Amino acid sequence: MTNTVSIPTFANSSAQPTAPLFSRASGLRLVEQIVQALASRIDDRLLRSGTRLPSIRQFADQHGVSRFTVVEAYDRLVASGHLESRRGSGFYVRERAPLINAALSKPEETAGNQIDVVWLARNMFRQLPPQKMPGSGLLPNELLDAELVANALRSISRQAPNALLQYGGPQGFLPLRQQLQLKLAELEISATPEQILTTSGVTQALDLVARHFLQPGDTVFVDDPAWFLMFGSFAMLGARVIGIPRTQDGPDVTKLAELAAQHRPKLFVTNSVLHNPTSGSLSSPKAFQILKIAEQYGFYIVEDDIYCDMHPGSAVQPATRIAALDQLQRVIYLGGFSKTLAANLRVGFIAASTELARALADRKILSSLTCSEVGERVVYKVLSEGHYRKHIERLRGKLERARDRTLRQLDRIGLDTADSAPVGMFVWTDTRRDANRLTELAMAEGWLLAPGSLFSPHQLPSSRMRFNVAALSDPAFWRFFEQALAGA
Amino acid sequence: MTNTVSIPTFANSSAQPTAPLFSRASGLRLVEQIVQALASRIDDRLLRSGTRLPSIRQFADQHGVSRFTVVEAYDRLVASGHLESRRGSGFYVRERAPLINAALSKPEETAGNQIDVVWLARNMFRQLPPQKMPGSGLLPNELLDAELVANALRSISRQAPNALLQYGGPQGFLPLRQQLQLKLAELEISATPEQILTTSGVTQALDLVARHFLQPGDTVFVDDPAWFLMFGSFAMLGARVIGIPRTQDGPDVTKLAELAAQHRPKLFVTNSVLHNPTSGSLSSPKAFQILKIAEQYGFYIVEDDIYCDMHPGSAVQPATRIAALDQLQRVIYLGGFSKTLAANLRVGFIAASTELARALADRKILSSLTCSEVGERVVYKVLSEGHYRKHIERLRGKLERARDRTLRQLDRIGLDTADSAPVGMFVWTDTRRDANRLTELAMAEGWLLAPGSLFSPHQLPSSRMRFNVAALSDPAFWRFFEQALAGA
Repeated sequence: MTNTVSIPTFANSSAQPTAPLFSRASGLRLVEQIVQALASRIDDRLLRSGTRLPSIRQFADQHGVSRFTVVEAYDRLVASGHLESRRGSGFYVRERAPLINAALSKPEETAGNQIDVVWLARNMFRQLPPQKMPGSGLLPNELLDAELVANALRSISRQAPNALLQYGGPQGFLPLRQQLQLKLAELEISATPEQILTTSGVTQALDLVARHFLQPGDTVFVDDPAWFLMFGSFAMLGARVIGIPRTQDGPDVTKLAELAAQHRPKLFVTNSVLHNPTSGSLSSPKAFQILKIAEQYGFYIVEDDIYCDMHPGSAVQPATRIAALDQLQRVIYLGGFSKTLAANLRVGFIAASTELARALADRKILSSLTCSEVGERVVYKVLSEGHYRKHIERLRGKLERARDRTLRQLDRIGLDTADSAPVGMFVWTDTRRDANRLTELAMAEGWLLAPGSLFSPHQLPSSRMRFNVAALSDPAFWRFFEQALAGA
Repeated sequence: MTNTVSIPTFANSSAQPTAPLFSRASGLRLVEQIVQALASRIDDRLLRSGTRLPSIRQFADQHGVSRFTVVEAYDRLVASGHLESRRGSGFYVRERAPLINAALSKPEETAGNQIDVVWLARNMFRQLPPQKMPGSGLLPNELLDAELVANALRSISRQAPNALLQYGGPQGFLPLRQQLQLKLAELEISATPEQILTTSGVTQALDLVARHFLQPGDTVFVDDPAWFLMFGSFAMLGARVIGIPRTQDGPDVTKLAELAAQHRPKLFVTNSVLHNPTSGSLSSPKAFQILKIAEQYGFYIVEDDIYCDMHPGSAVQPATRIAALDQLQRVIYLGGFSKTLAANLRVGFIAASTELARALADRKILSSLTCSEVGERVVYKVLSEGHYRKHIERLRGKLERARDRTLRQLDRIGLDTADSAPVGMFVWTDTRRDANRLTELAMAEGWLLAPGSLFSPHQLPSSRMRFNVAALSDPAFWRFFEQALAGA
């Protein structure tokens, strides 16, 4: 049986703040308002597909509007594909979600040996509730600040509507790049706005850099373990990916020197601070050694610092940026706001030598023209008005508490947490089981995990698992996981 | 001498609608409001660099606020890099624009033989007023509707703030893809939402398709003339670009068959409707012949339909989409909203076979994860609420009038317009002079033109010039151009 919802009750009890259905004071026609209110609730899945709407008479009575108004509104929602009319039975929210599920259901059903980078990448985007995704790489909404972003967006729509009509600058919104200059200066990295270009997240930044440096057959070094999406991205370019083992305070530099001599890589991509997935950070002596090896063998270092703002300061965990030593000669520094502000704004950036920044900007023009300045203006506003700093402080506090809770739970179920980093959003746990197998068991119960094999440049079997400490608040997960460990 | 502005006068007389400086009723502190109001005016260049601000006392008196408030606001604007304090002289808007100018001034100074794709691409992004850019590929703001976009943005910030925090779906916002399904159906192209993926403009769409099909050394066919940015984009991939001469009703099919037999291309990229730069459109018999040749030689057709919505209907100019014949078997259809709604939203899309759409979505994930859903939601709202259709009707009317005016002016100065297409935003004029030389003369006077050589796949010299009919409203341009023609 399908449910009939009473729209006003629904709107009032919704978890997400929703505007009232309509207002007599608005400039818009009543029917327009009703159409918009219902359409947006359907688009945002507040009204789910299959839900039966009140009858025309019920709706008219409940809201004190004429039946003609309701008829027109429902008709328009049928035309726009939001509702369907079932003969003799009334109006229903049209089935829309199955389209996504159809496109994404296959990977979910794959057996363990098919768990791969694309599998996880696709599943990360499934419409699972965040608390069902302990393997996610993003923070759940509770740690972020939707109002901060929404307010900035509103203020942009009021203050600079014309700016959205034309293209932004090819290197990105200049005031944002000036803010980034200040931000980098705090990390002792000196970069003029000409040395900075915005990108559609760190992913595009990496893609631009990789396309600039790598020819098919070239070698690129990455951390081992490392962020899995890169492997696919480099493979797409025909590059050979080799992993440099990660130790607690950074890459294994002996191994790095050895492999560099042997393979003559073009690039070494590394997270200096809050490495994904271990949450370890780089020590100063290692930073210096890496730079010397890079100079000796002539490769560039791509320092992906996307977790930068989650780091609570060197008193808790030393954290060195190689770019601070090198000042963007041999280091290409990447950053962004997907993790700490809002992933959907797609704002990342590259800081590099002036010459390289210019070459990368040309490449950006040729592959996607510009980024949307909407996101860039939002980030600029939030940074320049000081809101970002306060938000980050709150976020760090919440993250610390979530991390403590997670480590306690892991201890409780008998997993060793002694080698865990003290900070960051990830815990890299040794499950002492086949993590792919655990992932399959979890998927069958509707939990998305991130098994260690994915973070291995060659997808080698692993007993490690990356947990997102902020996505583990559901006690049901721990009950499931304890049982799964016992069974696996 | 620098000017001192009276802020309130300025705010009231501004061409762009601006919010009042502050409101006692606002929840924000007065100083915050003043900081924000001034900062956004500076960011948007409403207050230009070098402008002197009222003294602290003047400002306090004019606005009835305390001097402490003004001191704090000015101080914070100095800290944020918006103002600078000059000893003994007061506060000035800081020099910011020169950074952009420095980055972009070099191409402007290049001699004629260095006019190339990157030159024009960079110059398109210069902060010239639109009426100074008859060579621009975008419509000026008067033909677009900033309020439409701003309203949609506001409504998204109110109704779906949480949606912005996480990633959108890898294929794009589903309700938008459902709207695109309806839009394509009107063109007789049948595509399910699974067959559609959003991209960061048509540029990223082309890049994804090209990276999927092309290996270094492969051949790609383009129209000759064609949109210049493509040449750079394909060259970046190491592909060989060959032009198919464009006749009034589409590509020269005899030549196409001949060259296909000879070069065995992987792709043929073409504008069927309102071809850039000629504004010609494809006839049905030619569409059929192109498809047969593609089948015979096994290449794919990339149908870039970015100008789709400017076309006034087949009664004025026949316009056939190859995808309507082929139903996305051998045709990859591209579209977007940069030209007709707002370039800065960066919303384009690909429609292709289900299998290909899936492969391209994986490639999109690996190269930039997702697009910003902000833009996608704006486009969705504007489409689904019926505003887009009305906007397009107004736009077509304005375009028609601008086109008539332009053709009259060209006639008047003695250029032949007999072979001009009757519709579209571009006129492809034969100047009977070296168009590169005219472009240099124009650049010296501050006008950006688009010479024919840029649209030639091999940048061959040309006497043709692409004019944007909507960017020619300044009589000063026609005075300049008439003189330039006489002199060149």
